[in-house]
Amino acid sequence: MKYVYRFHEGNANMRNLLGGKGANLAEMTVMGLPVPGGFTISTEACTEYNKNGHEITAEMEAQIEDALKQLEAEAGKNLGDKDDPLLVSVRSGARISMPGMMDTVLNLGLNDESVKGLANKTDNERFAYDSYRRFIMMFADVVMGVDKRKFEDVLDAYKEKVGAASDTDLNADDLKELVVKFKEIYKENLGNDFPQLPKDQLYAAIKAVFGSWDNPRAFAYREMNDIPYEWGTAVNVQRMVFGNMGWDSGTGVAFSRNAATGENKVFGEYLINAQGEDVVAGVRTPKGIDELKTDLPEIYKQFMDLSNKLENHYKDMQDMEFTIESGKLYFLQTRNGKRTANAALKIAVDMVKEGLLTPDEALLKVEPKQLEQLLHPVFDEAELKAKEPLGQGLPASPGAAAGKVVFTAKEAKEQAEAGEKVVLVRLETSPEDIEGMAAAEGILTVRGGMTSHAAVVARGMGRCCVSGCEDIKMNEEAKEFTLSGKTFKEGDFISIDGSTGNIYDGEIKVTAPKASEDFSLFMQWADEKRKLKVRTNADTPVDAKNALESGAEGIGLTRTEHMFFEAERIKNFRKVILSDSEEERRKFLWAIKPYQKGDFEGIYEVMEERPVTIRLLDPPLHEFLPDSDEEFTELANEMGKSLEEIKTKAVSLRELNPMMGHRGCRLAVSYPEIAEMQTEAIIEAALNVSAKKGIKIVPEIMIPLVGEVKEFEFVRDIVKATADKVIAASGKEMTYQIGTMIEIPRACLTADAIAKEAQFFSFGTNDLTQMTFGLSRDDAGKILADYRKNMIYESDPTAKIDREGVGKLMKMAVESARQVRPDIKLGICGEHGGEASSVEFCHIIGLNYVSCSPFRVPAARLAAAQAEINFPR
Amino acid sequence: MKYVYRFHEGNANMRNLLGGKGANLAEMTVMGLPVPGGFTISTEACTEYNKNGHEITAEMEAQIEDALKQLEAEAGKNLGDKDDPLLVSVRSGARISMPGMMDTVLNLGLNDESVKGLANKTDNERFAYDSYRRFIMMFADVVMGVDKRKFEDVLDAYKEKVGAASDTDLNADDLKELVVKFKEIYKENLGNDFPQLPKDQLYAAIKAVFGSWDNPRAFAYREMNDIPYEWGTAVNVQRMVFGNMGWDSGTGVAFSRNAATGENKVFGEYLINAQGEDVVAGVRTPKGIDELKTDLPEIYKQFMDLSNKLENHYKDMQDMEFTIESGKLYFLQTRNGKRTANAALKIAVDMVKEGLLTPDEALLKVEPKQLEQLLHPVFDEAELKAKEPLGQGLPASPGAAAGKVVFTAKEAKEQAEAGEKVVLVRLETSPEDIEGMAAAEGILTVRGGMTSHAAVVARGMGRCCVSGCEDIKMNEEAKEFTLSGKTFKEGDFISIDGSTGNIYDGEIKVTAPKASEDFSLFMQWADEKRKLKVRTNADTPVDAKNALESGAEGIGLTRTEHMFFEAERIKNFRKVILSDSEEERRKFLWAIKPYQKGDFEGIYEVMEERPVTIRLLDPPLHEFLPDSDEEFTELANEMGKSLEEIKTKAVSLRELNPMMGHRGCRLAVSYPEIAEMQTEAIIEAALNVSAKKGIKIVPEIMIPLVGEVKEFEFVRDIVKATADKVIAASGKEMTYQIGTMIEIPRACLTADAIAKEAQFFSFGTNDLTQMTFGLSRDDAGKILADYRKNMIYESDPTAKIDREGVGKLMKMAVESARQVRPDIKLGICGEHGGEASSVEFCHIIGLNYVSCSPFRVPAARLAAAQAEINFPR
Repeated sequence: MKYVYRFHEGNANMRNLLGGKGANLAEMTVMGLPVPGGFTISTEACTEYNKNGHEITAEMEAQIEDALKQLEAEAGKNLGDKDDPLLVSVRSGARISMPGMMDTVLNLGLNDESVKGLANKTDNERFAYDSYRRFIMMFADVVMGVDKRKFEDVLDAYKEKVGAASDTDLNADDLKELVVKFKEIYKENLGNDFPQLPKDQLYAAIKAVFGSWDNPRAFAYREMNDIPYEWGTAVNVQRMVFGNMGWDSGTGVAFSRNAATGENKVFGEYLINAQGEDVVAGVRTPKGIDELKTDLPEIYKQFMDLSNKLENHYKDMQDMEFTIESGKLYFLQTRNGKRTANAALKIAVDMVKEGLLTPDEALLKVEPKQLEQLLHPVFDEAELKAKEPLGQGLPASPGAAAGKVVFTAKEAKEQAEAGEKVVLVRLETSPEDIEGMAAAEGILTVRGGMTSHAAVVARGMGRCCVSGCEDIKMNEEAKEFTLSGKTFKEGDFISIDGSTGNIYDGEIKVTAPKASEDFSLFMQWADEKRKLKVRTNADTPVDAKNALESGAEGIGLTRTEHMFFEAERIKNFRKVILSDSEEERRKFLWAIKPYQKGDFEGIYEVMEERPVTIRLLDPPLHEFLPDSDEEFTELANEMGKSLEEIKTKAVSLRELNPMMGHRGCRLAVSYPEIAEMQTEAIIEAALNVSAKKGIKIVPEIMIPLVGEVKEFEFVRDIVKATADKVIAASGKEMTYQIGTMIEIPRACLTADAIAKEAQFFSFGTNDLTQMTFGLSRDDAGKILADYRKNMIYESDPTAKIDREGVGKLMKMAVESARQVRPDIKLGICGEHGGEASSVEFCHIIGLNYVSCSPFRVPAARLAAAQAEINFPR
Repeated sequence: MKYVYRFHEGNANMRNLLGGKGANLAEMTVMGLPVPGGFTISTEACTEYNKNGHEITAEMEAQIEDALKQLEAEAGKNLGDKDDPLLVSVRSGARISMPGMMDTVLNLGLNDESVKGLANKTDNERFAYDSYRRFIMMFADVVMGVDKRKFEDVLDAYKEKVGAASDTDLNADDLKELVVKFKEIYKENLGNDFPQLPKDQLYAAIKAVFGSWDNPRAFAYREMNDIPYEWGTAVNVQRMVFGNMGWDSGTGVAFSRNAATGENKVFGEYLINAQGEDVVAGVRTPKGIDELKTDLPEIYKQFMDLSNKLENHYKDMQDMEFTIESGKLYFLQTRNGKRTANAALKIAVDMVKEGLLTPDEALLKVEPKQLEQLLHPVFDEAELKAKEPLGQGLPASPGAAAGKVVFTAKEAKEQAEAGEKVVLVRLETSPEDIEGMAAAEGILTVRGGMTSHAAVVARGMGRCCVSGCEDIKMNEEAKEFTLSGKTFKEGDFISIDGSTGNIYDGEIKVTAPKASEDFSLFMQWADEKRKLKVRTNADTPVDAKNALESGAEGIGLTRTEHMFFEAERIKNFRKVILSDSEEERRKFLWAIKPYQKGDFEGIYEVMEERPVTIRLLDPPLHEFLPDSDEEFTELANEMGKSLEEIKTKAVSLRELNPMMGHRGCRLAVSYPEIAEMQTEAIIEAALNVSAKKGIKIVPEIMIPLVGEVKEFEFVRDIVKATADKVIAASGKEMTYQIGTMIEIPRACLTADAIAKEAQFFSFGTNDLTQMTFGLSRDDAGKILADYRKNMIYESDPTAKIDREGVGKLMKMAVESARQVRPDIKLGICGEHGGEASSVEFCHIIGLNYVSCSPFRVPAARLAAAQAEINFPR
């Protein structure tokens, strides 16, 4: 097994094996760029190391020794040589760039002897001891886990003692004394002397890098970015070059284009006579890259040429690290640069205009998720920088919000109407909270995962939401909660970031989103490419309008339940629920019908001939009931029943597991009149708008929660009989479709039977995921947290389709459905419909469309285009 | 398509097409028995009729006309002939005998003219008009839906008027007058005259039979017996013979053996000079069949010979109907007779001894479900006959119970200890009710299906239970409930039958079960035949001992959660749950350990070297918390916390959908120390009992609710490390197995990955069914009722494995698991493990064992043997 690769043995395509950094160092080496020599220990070695009880195997060691010998030969000096020592850096490098997550050791190879050799050879004693004291601290900190503040405190005390304003005021003797002190700290904290053998230093450092794959920061980053633990990290061992060798030396970082705006101009900073960490630490203020033209004009020119060469080579904006050692330029790293959403768009579009990229290539340069940034408010960057988050929940719905804390939907609505900005804080939300959620700037919940009620509804509304912050101790009665020791009462200011899940004390300024001017051209390329249609989930004409503006081609899911919550209707609907007879139910249901019809008309007015899928009533009925005795009493009086009677009825509707209870099509089986009323409203609305606008509307009526074909047939027959009756009575012509949501595992398993009867399927992957995992999305918060901590789920299956389980069911369903009904229309309307990897999966298994929240439509359009580029149909 | 079969065209194997009655009439005809001629309209015609908008197609009609013509030719007389009319009966006959469910029309073909012909021809005017008035009433009632009491009232009034004590006291003139009156009633109720055209009569009757497949009684019967709606019913049209033609005529029914005891002696009753309905109506007291020897010795001999011939032919006890017309014997029906469990066993064993059956054939003659009757108390038959049920719930756990109503587990326990017999009535039960359930004679719940907590636990205990009686209006606060208008308070007597679901007011005497002496021989044949092992679900040594006596070969599921509810432990376990740190939790957990260990030792003492699968803690933690503030306060004091603190903690544990919440292996992921303690207890117990008894125990530790291999690995690693440590510390040798329950759909979908790590699988089909259907078993009562009513589910998937959905997942899992681990041990421990059709399915897909409640073990053993006979492996 080959574990170690010298730089010229690799290339950029070997990223999985060598990590991003190693692969790019190899690529630059092969391209002929000036890169200090070195070698990479592969990610496979990391995996092997972790499996092997955290030991370097003999095979690995032999290969490391061999590579080291060749590096020594190339450099013409040996590690630990007391006269002219080879110094190396040891850095991690995973497959995907993980900035700040991994630890680096520089100047490795110095000891009490070789430091003297370095001083002699460079004729710079100060430089040699400065390097040594840095190495001791870094090694102690990064490799051995000693808090580096212990060193910094001593350094600061020493500087004060000798009256040095900055590190550079210390002379060689000062640094020699500090080396002695640093070694003492090392021994005090670890019980043994600072290792003098360079090989011991090297292996300890390699192990530390492998170990750093296990540190909490790395976990957090991987979790946020869906990076599997198995990928591991590579280790890069590279000859040191020094930017702190004098005034013809220096170090810097640069982007080949502007990472914030996308402007096509190298953007970077450097420091003369400094090491990399000085730039990062901010001790000295770095200069803009343009000034290098004056400082070192030859180097400037060479750098600009090579930057350009790299960009052309990688066909992407590069983020580079460089060092100038005694007038010679070295590249220490290059990688595709991180950038804002606007920059990403501009760079992609510019590069096409420059002829560097084809539109297809450009489409792959922007992450779909980034596009969401363009559509949501964000915190003022300066204010945000000054804040530390007080806690973190799940990034349930992107955007930023700041306002006064309120604890009830009612308060949210009242205060918002009075002109206040409020953030609604709840244990969890329920359909009753809808109006309050709409009125609030943002929603914060203690429980619930990425597809909890709060998350789903907030995303639908484009409202910022942080869910499942289990650290919050909530006292609903007292109207207060505590987070990280701070107690919030009603009216206290709070700020939440739905894109990161961060929660901040106080009010942070929120700025409106602005889309770049390249957006529409870019999205046009995406639309031309993609095979998947993109619809939206929209329950109101306003949502529908937003979604159309975002490029939606239809509505994949209109939930009808929210329509029942408006003040005029909810009371009637509660009476429906509390009725004892079909006759009573019909009376109250048909009182709601004009409103439902109006809702649907509003949506058809916006959508015109575009497809609109309307789902029949889905949630358990008890979700619609009031909480207060006051409201119950009022209902009882109006219905001519006793309070006890209707409360007994209400209690009988409660369920232990409502998610798997009396809901979906099961409601229509028990109360066919509900489906009948809704069908009348849908068809009449479609007839009215068709006539008024002279257009042809084909309503799509969706029956939820089907798990057995006979249950579909039962409800379908009611819907069909009703629709046909309404159409016949109108004297007009209209066709319509009746289909079903596939959200119960059994529906996937019997999809062939269902497809014989249903004209379309829409995968409800929220429920399908819940049931396939047996994991309630409302209760998943704590469980998912423990599961991530223990590396059991690499990504959140409620956010990204689990291809192995849920995906397998979907694939079975698609294949068996198409076998019996080749032209069946297949879509997805779960939350996954707006997530890139899930969209890709939907493309691969051959769905016709995805449907997602209005604000995720652009992301879905781009993801669909990328899927077609990567997996052409 | 052939829809109509003359009797001699069919045979007994054509039961699916001709129905049971038709097939047997054909078989008897072909065997040469005296059967009046006729023909059968097939079940396919019924299906076609229902599909065809309830119309007889032209094709069907042509075939009926043709068959009728041949029947007329054979009989030498024509339907409706005014001189010598052919009369026919029209009877239904489904694939499976459905006694009392279907309606019969006799004497069809009579009208105002032909009745005169009949009178002339038979020289018996009284007989002719008696037949006519019966026909009019039957036709009006059965075919046209007129309440027959309207006719009976007139008949009774007339009898009073003329001073007739019984029908036989009426003379021909009386009957002529009654015919007039009956035709008037007909016209009054239906608006038109009684049909005079025999063909009209015939087609109306045929349609009525087809329609009777749709009547509520038929639905109820099919539901109880898992008969699909699609099967349909056939119609038999047969020449009438008359038992009321004089004193050399008669009619009767007989069983070829005793249906109650199984004794090998013809058992039957007959009436001379009567029609069949007279026997059924009980107007005259029938004579025992032995008396026929005196009345009509030739006929008696002939009947005994033919009865014997039929039994030998069918190799089963026969239930026969016969008529003697003017000294000639006719068989009108034969079928395999219904019998009690004891009779079934005796007949099966006797027939083997008689050389009539092989043991394999005998095994197929007893329904596995029947064996449960032998093991449970039943109501005194005489007392039961005198009672009408007050209501009905689901037959959740067989047996009969009578006692005083109590509303809390606490009351149940106290009163039982005071010597009272009590029936515990609850909205639903929870683990806290266990002790009360054990103390009660029976349990009655308002909510919950066949696999609700109450049902599962009651079956496990062998306690009678009726669940999901949604008609009960419960007022828990007032300690009373109302059912069918009767209000029960604490202390009122109630009787419940867990085998039928019936609920009775008052106390019915309960008699103990007694097994027949043929039982052990019969079960020995079953054990020799079957390939599936049969284990039991048992949580206590007592359960285990019962199960061993019932023939269990091991324990497939020991639930450990019930062990936490005993008084000494529950408090400690509540403290575990309410702790804030692992340290605290460990303290309280290890205080419970000695008890757990003791439990396991008790079970191992009973089971010795037989396999015992112990499941780690499964239910959500909040199920263990108390309800009362009093108890919370006590806990708070003892833990040194404030009441508010621990109540906040308790609230934070509540879940919206606990069934899909923080339970199963998810508990062990969050709190590994629970799994650790339980593993220590299991292994130490096994070591102790092994040493004490000098035997070799191989513990099987089962990790529940796995849906992802990494979650299994995580918990497996904890269990393994703990077990290895305990074994090493003991200085002894012991092997053990770690496996998992397959109860999450995703576990089936990723079974190959899981099987790589797990040594055994046990299908937890209760949860697997819930999640595959998305149907909470605790909330399913009302839903299933509506679904059965609407013919959506043909059988209850929580009772009988749904082969199309759940079964497909199981099959996938078995196949993919065996591919990666060919010797993996596969079992089932869901409630389905004791249900015959489910056992058959487990046999077919190749499981190694089924595990069920102790009381269902004999049924499972028989079902496994039948599966091997029908589907040899």
